[in-house]
Amino acid sequence: MGASNNMQVVTTIEQLKTIVNDIKRQGKTIGLVPTMGYLHEGHLTLASTSKVENDFTVMSIFVNPTQFGPNEDFDSYPRDLERDTKLADSVGVDVIFAPSVEEMYPTNGGISIRAGRQSEILCGASRPGHFDGVLQVVAKLFHLAEPTRAYFGQKDAQQVAIIQTLVRDFNFPLTIRTVPIVREEDGLAKSSRNVYLSEEDRQQAPAIYEALQMAREHFLSSFHVEEAIELAQNHINQKTSGRIDYLQLLSYPDLAEITTETEQFLLATAVYIGKTRLIDNIIFSNKG
Amino acid sequence: MGASNNMQVVTTIEQLKTIVNDIKRQGKTIGLVPTMGYLHEGHLTLASTSKVENDFTVMSIFVNPTQFGPNEDFDSYPRDLERDTKLADSVGVDVIFAPSVEEMYPTNGGISIRAGRQSEILCGASRPGHFDGVLQVVAKLFHLAEPTRAYFGQKDAQQVAIIQTLVRDFNFPLTIRTVPIVREEDGLAKSSRNVYLSEEDRQQAPAIYEALQMAREHFLSSFHVEEAIELAQNHINQKTSGRIDYLQLLSYPDLAEITTETEQFLLATAVYIGKTRLIDNIIFSNKG
Repeated sequence: MGASNNMQVVTTIEQLKTIVNDIKRQGKTIGLVPTMGYLHEGHLTLASTSKVENDFTVMSIFVNPTQFGPNEDFDSYPRDLERDTKLADSVGVDVIFAPSVEEMYPTNGGISIRAGRQSEILCGASRPGHFDGVLQVVAKLFHLAEPTRAYFGQKDAQQVAIIQTLVRDFNFPLTIRTVPIVREEDGLAKSSRNVYLSEEDRQQAPAIYEALQMAREHFLSSFHVEEAIELAQNHINQKTSGRIDYLQLLSYPDLAEITTETEQFLLATAVYIGKTRLIDNIIFSNKG
Repeated sequence: MGASNNMQVVTTIEQLKTIVNDIKRQGKTIGLVPTMGYLHEGHLTLASTSKVENDFTVMSIFVNPTQFGPNEDFDSYPRDLERDTKLADSVGVDVIFAPSVEEMYPTNGGISIRAGRQSEILCGASRPGHFDGVLQVVAKLFHLAEPTRAYFGQKDAQQVAIIQTLVRDFNFPLTIRTVPIVREEDGLAKSSRNVYLSEEDRQQAPAIYEALQMAREHFLSSFHVEEAIELAQNHINQKTSGRIDYLQLLSYPDLAEITTETEQFLLATAVYIGKTRLIDNIIFSNKG
């Protein structure tokens, strides 16, 4: 474990299915770690967790065009398969599935999966169709890798909530596992997009997580949603040159307005620092 | 084979998953025969085919509300689980999965599967949302029964074409198998809905298949689409008191307009005889 284990890199569905069918025939469990590559510690934590919990770990590396909007960064999204391969091998991934766009989308009969009301808020409000694209590629990857467990970072809290709903309402035969946000020492959530930040922007960025922590504390002592949100907004506006896209407190995982019944809370934000959109969140309960 | 084999009838997802997981662990193949019950010879042929091709056969019996329109016959659709159980047992089905509506749809997070352009013609033109509902229940059943092969009757040609597209474009790990239309001695395609026909209507109904055969012969000798269609329409109008909903000649399985490139043809019709809507089709090639 940990050392090189003859990791394979495959690019075709046929190659992946041959491996998956062989593993399934042996009655072994499969962990799937779907990524868009340019791996950081967050991804490697997902893979390490899968390693511990499953006999065999598949990591997909695919920058999925259908989840990018027309004005988003599909073309400039960072890619480095050689580096990713070494990193994945170092944590014991058994196979990397790195298909081309043509391999994943050779045909289009017009059938689509539509994420519903959960996708119309938070990140979804400014990214119409994004979560439809996420569900499309996730459903395909689930069918291709046939995992026992699939691993997602809690950083994309809305994504996790929507994928959990897909698995539940469409009875996918697998379990979604989430791992906590991995942070830099100063609190900034790790992200592939952090490489876009200028030095100055990078120094301001930790204020995002500070703001979320302040809002959580205020909410838990006062139960006053608007005040908690305002406190966090002010902190971000004072400490950064960023523009807040949203900063919201919702029930989790329903992503609905909180009521006196709500037990789990999601405090989530997206902030443009320069041209870079950073997201962060805290999930917490009122049970202390 | 054929004799009683201790068929089980289960109504909960948990019971089905226990059986499926056990069969999969043994490395055995599973055939799934999705039905809405009130079994006739067509269904039994699907089950018998599954029996031959797989180690274990699951038949689902579920009248799926999400594929019925508001003015359709969901409430009056015939149901007889006791009779179905005996018939399924007689052809060697291993387990019947007969869930309640609540068991199949306990939650609704708002995610949907939308059948696209293939669903806007033929039966879909007069049944908005019908194929969305079909894909919803079929995706759920595929995930629940995890079949190696799933069996559908060619009678529902549009349904088969759309489900084939779902499996192809979303990489479901299974094969769709179709079996030919089973007919009465006078040519009428067997259907659960035939029990609705009055004696007079029943005597007229074979004209539908006669019309399709006439159109095929005319098309293959003349390659004149409009003439072939008109010939069939005239036959139905002269021989029955029915009203033609549609009668079309399309490419198969794309369900697009035929061109000089088309090799496989679908000649499909839906006719209201009295209040009963009957469908029939012929799939044929120009290779004789």
